[in-house]
This record gives sequence, structure tokens and C-alpha cells, in this order.
Amino acid sequence: MAASDPSSSGGGPDPNSTNLRPPSTTYDAWCGVAHGCTRKLGMKICGFLQKNNNLEDKSRIVSSLKERQSSNLLDGENSERECRFRRTETDFSNLFARDLLPAKNGEEQTMQFLLEVVDILLNYVKKTFDRSTKVLDFHHPHQLLEGMEGFNLELSDQPESLEQILVDCRDSLKYGVRTGHPRFFNQLSSGLDIIGLAGEWLTSTANTNMFTYEIAPVFVLMEQLTLKKMREMIGWPGGDGDGIFSPGGAISNMYGVMAARYKYFPEVKTKGMAAAPKLLLFTSEHSHYSIKKAGAALGFGTENVILLKSDERGRVIPADLEAKILDAKQKGHVPMFVNATAGTTVYGAFDPIQEIADICEKYNLWLHVDAAWGGGLLMSRKHRHKLNGIERANSVTWNPHKMMGVLLQCSAILVREKGILQGCNQMCAGYLFQQDKQYDISYDTGDKAIQCGRHVDIFKFWLMWKAKGTIGFEQQINKCLELSEYLYTKIKNRDGYQMVFNGEPQHTNVCFWYIPLSLRGMPDCEERRQRLHKVAPKIKACMMETGTTMVGYQPQGNKVNFFRMIVSNPAATKSDIDFLIDEIERLGHDL
Amino acid sequence: MAASDPSSSGGGPDPNSTNLRPPSTTYDAWCGVAHGCTRKLGMKICGFLQKNNNLEDKSRIVSSLKERQSSNLLDGENSERECRFRRTETDFSNLFARDLLPAKNGEEQTMQFLLEVVDILLNYVKKTFDRSTKVLDFHHPHQLLEGMEGFNLELSDQPESLEQILVDCRDSLKYGVRTGHPRFFNQLSSGLDIIGLAGEWLTSTANTNMFTYEIAPVFVLMEQLTLKKMREMIGWPGGDGDGIFSPGGAISNMYGVMAARYKYFPEVKTKGMAAAPKLLLFTSEHSHYSIKKAGAALGFGTENVILLKSDERGRVIPADLEAKILDAKQKGHVPMFVNATAGTTVYGAFDPIQEIADICEKYNLWLHVDAAWGGGLLMSRKHRHKLNGIERANSVTWNPHKMMGVLLQCSAILVREKGILQGCNQMCAGYLFQQDKQYDISYDTGDKAIQCGRHVDIFKFWLMWKAKGTIGFEQQINKCLELSEYLYTKIKNRDGYQMVFNGEPQHTNVCFWYIPLSLRGMPDCEERRQRLHKVAPKIKACMMETGTTMVGYQPQGNKVNFFRMIVSNPAATKSDIDFLIDEIERLGHDL
Repeated sequence: MAASDPSSSGGGPDPNSTNLRPPSTTYDAWCGVAHGCTRKLGMKICGFLQKNNNLEDKSRIVSSLKERQSSNLLDGENSERECRFRRTETDFSNLFARDLLPAKNGEEQTMQFLLEVVDILLNYVKKTFDRSTKVLDFHHPHQLLEGMEGFNLELSDQPESLEQILVDCRDSLKYGVRTGHPRFFNQLSSGLDIIGLAGEWLTSTANTNMFTYEIAPVFVLMEQLTLKKMREMIGWPGGDGDGIFSPGGAISNMYGVMAARYKYFPEVKTKGMAAAPKLLLFTSEHSHYSIKKAGAALGFGTENVILLKSDERGRVIPADLEAKILDAKQKGHVPMFVNATAGTTVYGAFDPIQEIADICEKYNLWLHVDAAWGGGLLMSRKHRHKLNGIERANSVTWNPHKMMGVLLQCSAILVREKGILQGCNQMCAGYLFQQDKQYDISYDTGDKAIQCGRHVDIFKFWLMWKAKGTIGFEQQINKCLELSEYLYTKIKNRDGYQMVFNGEPQHTNVCFWYIPLSLRGMPDCEERRQRLHKVAPKIKACMMETGTTMVGYQPQGNKVNFFRMIVSNPAATKSDIDFLIDEIERLGHDL
Repeated sequence: MAASDPSSSGGGPDPNSTNLRPPSTTYDAWCGVAHGCTRKLGMKICGFLQKNNNLEDKSRIVSSLKERQSSNLLDGENSERECRFRRTETDFSNLFARDLLPAKNGEEQTMQFLLEVVDILLNYVKKTFDRSTKVLDFHHPHQLLEGMEGFNLELSDQPESLEQILVDCRDSLKYGVRTGHPRFFNQLSSGLDIIGLAGEWLTSTANTNMFTYEIAPVFVLMEQLTLKKMREMIGWPGGDGDGIFSPGGAISNMYGVMAARYKYFPEVKTKGMAAAPKLLLFTSEHSHYSIKKAGAALGFGTENVILLKSDERGRVIPADLEAKILDAKQKGHVPMFVNATAGTTVYGAFDPIQEIADICEKYNLWLHVDAAWGGGLLMSRKHRHKLNGIERANSVTWNPHKMMGVLLQCSAILVREKGILQGCNQMCAGYLFQQDKQYDISYDTGDKAIQCGRHVDIFKFWLMWKAKGTIGFEQQINKCLELSEYLYTKIKNRDGYQMVFNGEPQHTNVCFWYIPLSLRGMPDCEERRQRLHKVAPKIKACMMETGTTMVGYQPQGNKVNFFRMIVSNPAATKSDIDFLIDEIERLGHDL
């Protein structure tokens, strides 16, 4: 395939020439011409040019384009059709992975196989939005492990046919959970955004790594621009600061703690925690467990993660923070880091950031805001006031894969002061971050990560933002909050329901007990508590086994198991809320 | 859409019935019948059943199936066609994200949009394997930031049309790097495995989270089975032990260090590093920088990550380990953790694990093997001896996304002793890991992670293993090593080449200097060193700007910039190796 004579090996530029980019220049020039045409025709020409963007054919194509363009062949779409793939009936029972690309003549099988997979996926997408489809087809672990008819999880030495692989794909979806179903209310992340899906398919196809501009130029720039936009929404002047996408909110929170430690005790990087006094982290009892995880992992110890009291609504009590800071100082310990949660996991509560920021300023502490769940509300002019004061934070965790419906995973850590992430994490690996590259190496952002390789989480998010605009996210988020309000209003005074806390929820979390008939009117006593504790798990188990809907439950503090309803799926409607209520009553009425 | 009367809202089971799974039973029974038919017909019926697997239609379909089956309509494929999606010409210029599902009547647009995206992706896949396509179309950051014709990275308040979104998809690929191109030799991860790609598309579509069996039943089980299989290949008796997939080798190595610390000093989890003496980590000067990163992050300090001397080939010198352990003990420090690398990043060297394991046993130290890069060789009967002794490790990092060609990201940390990961990381979050679920909660593995949410990295890997079998991976890996040997043999005595170390490389890393004509015969002096240092970056810059191929370079220790050639892409052939050599000579000859 490759010729050993470079002059015939792909039309690279003449080595005697100093102009290193002639092909691209020609392409760009012609794209410019194309864009001068009517918008649609222009794009088609551009698409055509790009689809044929190989070294050998380009000049030929470009020169023939003039003729074709003037004779309007392109407008008739003939040439585009050449590049389109059509499914044909293919017998996959005698085909194997080894018959696909890069196998010789593997192109047709490859395209047919991928189209067959896409058909399975499109059917899945279609059914996901169809309310007559079950949310899940529940099986116990031992059932799936024993192997369902035609679906066997075991791996073997020998390959299986592509026909079996297609069956495996279908079955993997069949026995899974449709997190995009309008009646899946189980997690903070739900929904199946079509643009995000397209973005993620593209990301997989590009299969690259965020550590250098060298191999992810477009994605690295998208990340920078998007992070800047997020910092602007936080309210940091000019969107200045730093940040990175990380593999989830727990890691983002860990970055927050690490950044704080590096700011106040940079010597810990080289000398370890022994170089610092006893450092304390503060976070509310309602905050996410990842702050404690970070405390354990980073060498602070969970005992030095001080839990703050919350009010009845789950919001931290600032006075308790100040009291505990003073207490710690008196003991000779060093308060360092305060986490305020914007949208707690269970109650959806927003800590009063302003008051916490005042205390952090007073005592010179790092303020981190865990807005993993609540960050999305910054996109909403109606709801962003709930995060007032976030602009005073030193670092912020914000997970677009939660309230904004971006596909998993998509979490950002944003830091107000530039250079801290780099200083904290860089190890200057010579094999990746060469200082003598031909491009501006400030775009090689890998050394500020605790990871080396890093998955491309940005593209789907960037594409969704392009496709929806900020106002699209705003509408989507407002709608989810309206639905939660609808649920809250509907059940707050309804027979058989008891709210876990009073007043309208701040986020889409609606927390409530369902009281079966047998417990209504029963005085609050230990027996009632014990029986009520079992209600939500029983209803949930029935929901899962019938597959009609899913909603989470948990105990919290001294409160027995209650339902935590979440709306983060733009596909949900009032009728789905109604359905959930009916389903809970149907399954729980006689418990 | 949803009815508020549950009895009409999806055909859920009769609430008076105690049998909670009638629909699935019927489906399974019919699938059983279907599988009794000829294989292909059976699968078709199954597929048909599944595609129509909704609550309302199922019993009707199942009962009508008998007739249809006997009249052989299914064999004529008519019914399958109903479920197939065909592209039609769609004008996307007036369509927006809001017109897609879950929009009312959004199904047709959704399918057409996704098919259009798939067409873009299939064209990209096709071109990726086409050697006449460039590896990349290089642009500087400022060029892309200024905006190319029709491609603007900026985000705005207003949505863009789906036509523009499609252009954005094309352009994002156009200005990126084809890491699957047969002439992309730049990173340890390369290639574009078609089965893996299908797997990743499915993973995105399923869009779920690994933290609980509840919402990822199939994927959680696949992870467990695959990790067991990997442990068997490591050689741990019965494949026993523990493990988890993590977001990359750096995090996996961090897990190794955390597990060791928890084993020896469990009180650090609660009390922090202050509860432990001065703990030391040992790793070779050629090892990956993530060990130092872990040392910094976890509170050990980089000064307490002791670098061990390596031999000329980059393999650690065990005597130096023992000397440094003794020295540390004499100072009252506590050696705790030793990392042996199986496949170093630059040289591809394998540390002598047996000898290191002897020392670790003697001094009761945790042995971690970083086989992120070399782990794949365990699949090869010919090459696995290079990892002899790995069965004596306490923990192992193994990245299938490197030598095994699995798409990014796919990295596993494997631990010999069960329970350590859980003990080390669990925080018992009540909202996720309820103890009163209806299924065996030992399958809720999220609490042993340092993450909360966790991306599904397993499916593509599992699917590839199914499709290739262990022997398929073996062949693929052997082939890459043969190609490296071909390169090594070809250049070791060739004019203008100088090997960085003597002897055949252990992995596919081939490290060499290209010596331009002007430097040949010049005695080794500072001027020659300085000039040679600039050769690789210059050639690399030219390669990138012409887009013909990509290969990495770096300095190492006192060695000036040299090329590090990697073969991990099964699409590469001898002709591509020839091409690389020609290209280096063409671009570098006159430097």
C-alpha cells in the first residue's frame, strides 16, 4: 500500500518547498468558495470536499469541482450519494471480528456490521421514549450469571460470530435499565439527550486522549472555551481562572481539596502531610460522601473532615461552622477547607454560600462549592439566585451530566486562581509534555490532571450547548423544576403522603414517605417507624420487578426510609409524575 | 401519553397477582422456542420479540407469532424490515435540537439526524483505514480559535440548526487526529477497533453508571467476570481477588498505593498520614510519573517516592532496591510499597519481577506491578514470560486500552486480597448502597471506588473479548511485536540510525536517533548533542504539518531527544513501517 518513494506516497508537499501546508490551503480556499454559495449548497460542497479529503485525490477533485458546480450536479445530490452507506442483508453467522477492518476487503462488512449495530441502538432509542416500554426487565444476579437463553456472559478462548455479537448487543440492552425512559427517576443523572448521544458516538469514533493538544487539538480548545464559559456563569471576572474536566464529581471534589492544600501548604507536594499541621476540612452532614472520601484518600483522615449541622431543610448552619472553626483553632488544629453544597444529594438543599463565604474570608479558608447537582441552575435566570455567592468560591464542582442532561461522564472542577492545578499536579513527564514542540504548548493541559490519559468528556457537552444554546439549557432546567413543583403541590396534602421536610424544595428533589393504609392514623412510635422503614424498599422492589418506573429511597439521619424523587430528564411530563404517584399507591396501598 | 389509571397505563401485572414477572416469563419462554428453531431464524424471532418488547403489545405479538412463524413470513424478513431505519433526504436547516425526541412527533427527525451523524462517522472510519488519507490536518491553536471557514468553537445563547451541528461534527473530525490511522505511532494507545467502537456506541446509548447493580446489572456482572478472567491470566489461584475498572492507569496506580497503605496502616483512613511513620514508596527512574503523582496526591510527598536505578535497558536493578530499603530502615523510615513496571513508557522495559518479589517478601513490602502497557502480553503465550512473577504481586495495573487496542478509556486495578478496596474506600452512602434492596447487594461495587459515579468502561472490552476470543487478542499482540522486531532489524545497522539501547526491545517500543547527514561521522561532543537534540522535534513538526505520520520523541535522563516508535495498532503493516523510515529520512536527511 505504501510506496517507499515519498514523492508517490500520498502527495505530501515537495520537500524542497518551505510551504508546509498546501493541501489544507487549497481545501480551505475551496471551502471558502463553497460557503459563498447558498448556505445549503455550500455546506454540501464542503461536506463533499471533506469526505474526499485525501492527499492523492484532492487536487483532482478540486479542479473538477468547478465544472461540476457550474453544471449543478452537486445540487442533484448525486455525488453525495456516493458517500452514503446503505444497509444490505448480510449474513453475519460466518463473519468474525477478523473479517472487519483493517482486514483486506473488510470495508463492506465493517459498514454493514456497524449499520446493524446502529439499527439495534436506534430501536433502543425509540423504545426508550415509548412509555409502553418497560423501564427495566429485572433479573437477579444469579439469573444473569447462569445465562439467559442465548445470552452468556462468559468469555472464552475462541471467537464468536458477528451474528452472536449482535445478539449480545441486543441482550445487553434488553437486560439493562433504560435510564432515559421518561419514568426513570432513580438518579440525579437521567435522560438520553439525542445531541449528546451523537456527540458521544463521535467521541468514541475519534478515540483520542485529552492530555495534549497534539492528539486532541479540537477537543482541548473546546474544553478551554467551555470551561471559560462556565466560569463566566459562576461570575468570576472575565471568566478568568482555571479548570479541567474530571471523571466525576467525587474526583472533582478531590481536586478542590488538593488545590486548597497546595495553596496553603505547597510543601506537602514534596514532603507529604508530615510537613503540615493537623489540617481540617469542613462540610455539612448532608453533603456528598466524596468529601470524606477525599479526606481519606489524600491523607487528612476522615476524623479531620468535620461535619457541620444542617437545618431542617438540609442547609448548613453557618454559625455551626464558625463555632467549629474556633473550637479547632483553640485545639491548635488548622482549619483549611470548607465545602458548601449547592444542591445536596438527598434533599436538594442549597447551603447559604454568602454567609459561608463571609466566614471563609474572615478566617482565610478555602471555599469550595460542590455544585455537582445544583450547578445547572446557573443556566437559569429564574433559579440561579439559589447559588448566590458562588462567585466568591475558590473552587467549584459542576457536573453537566446531572441537571443539564449531558451523557455520563461530564464533570468539571473550576478553580478561581490560575496555576494552582498545574502547580499542584505537574510532574513534567518528558515523553508527553515536550517543551520543544512546534505549537504553543500552554495548550497541553495534561500535567494539571491527576490522571495521565484522560477521556474526552467535552465534545458531547460542547455540541449540546451549540445545539440548544444557553437558553435551551435554561428551558430544560426550568421545566424540570416546574415538574417537581407539580409533584410537590400534588402530594403535600394528599392522603397517604408525608413530606420529609416542610416547604417547597429548592431543587428537583422531592422527599416524602408514602404511608400505607395500615399505618395511617397510627401514632408515631417505634413500631410505626420500623414498619414505615420497610415500605419504600418493598414498593421499590415491586417497581423494579414489574419494570414500570424507578425512584430512589434512603434513610437520612434519624429518618427512616423515604422516597427521593428526582426530575432531571427533559422527557418527563406531568403524566409521568401522575403515573409515579398512582404506581406507588397501587403497589403500596395494602402494605 | 400516560394514563393516570394504572390498569390502562401499560399493562402492568394485575396488582392482585403475586407473580411479579409474567411478561418476562412469556418472553423468555418464547425466546426458548425461538432458539429451538434454526439458529438464524431463531435469532430473528428473538430479535423481533425484543424489538417489540413492550408491555401492551407483547401478549398479542406472542400469540400471533405461531401463525406467522408457520406461514414463514418471518423468514421472508418482512416483519424485521418494519423495525429498520432507512435514511431519507432530510432538510436539517430548519430543524433544531428541540425538534428531536422527546419532542412530540420527534421520532422521525431523531432517527434521520442520528443516521446522518452515523454516515459522517462511517465515512471517518473508512478514511481512517485508508492510507491515502492524512493522519491529521494540522492547525495551530490560534488558527482554530480564530475560527475556520464555517467552524466556530464559540458557544452562544441561541441554538444552532441541526444542519450546522452536522457541519460541526464533520469539522471536529476533520481538524482532529486519526489515532486509528495505520501510520499513527504516537502513543501507547492507537488503532480503532470496530467491535470496540460498536461497544462504545452501545455504552453511550445505555448511558448508565457502574455504581450499583440496580442501574447497570449487565455491565456490573461483565466487569466482575472480566476482572476474574484477568486475575486468572495474572496467575492468582482460581482468579480470586478483587479489582475495579478506573479512569486510566494513573488512577489505577493510585489505587495500588492506597490499597497498600490501607493494608499496613488502616488507621490512616480515619486519622490521616499523621498516624503513620514516614512511609516510603519505591519505583524505578524509568517508571511512569503517575507513581510520583500518587505520592504527591495521597500525602506521602514526592521526596518519599524513592527512584531506583535502572540498567542500560531501562530495567530496575534489584540490588539498588535492597540497598535503598536498608538505607531507609537505618534512617528510621518505613519502606511500604514497591512498584515494578511491566513495560516502561519509553523503553518498553520489563522490570525483573521475580527478584523484586523476593525482596518484597523478605522485607514485607507491598508489590505493585504497573503493567498498564505490558499487561496485554499476558494474553500471548509467546511473550507472557516477560511478566514472570506477576502472580506474586499484591496489586496490578493493566490497561486494555493500550496494547489490547480497547477504546479509551479502559484500565483495571487488580488486587490479590479481597476486601481491601472496599475497606479502604467505603463510606456507606445510604442513598446509593441501601442494605435492604431486594437483590444480592454484594454486586453494588461502587463503594470500593474513589469515584461515586463511574463510567461504563467494561462493555467494549467484554464485547471485543467475546468477538476475538483470547486467541484473537494473542494474534493481534504477537503481530504488533513482530512488526516492532521488523523495524528494529531494519534500522539497527542502517546508515543514519543509532539505537538508544542495545539489543532487541522487550516490548514494541523501538527507541532510536535519526542522524542527519550533517551529523554523521561527527565525534560525540556537546555541539553534536545539542544539534541532535533538535533533530527529532524538527522532523516531528514536519510530519505533523504535512500530516503523513506521527511518532513520539523525548529526551530521557542524559540522552537527548530520540524517537520512540510504538506499534499497538493492528492496522499497521510492514509497509507502514517502511513508510515511516522513508518519511524520517525524507524530512531529516538535510537537517
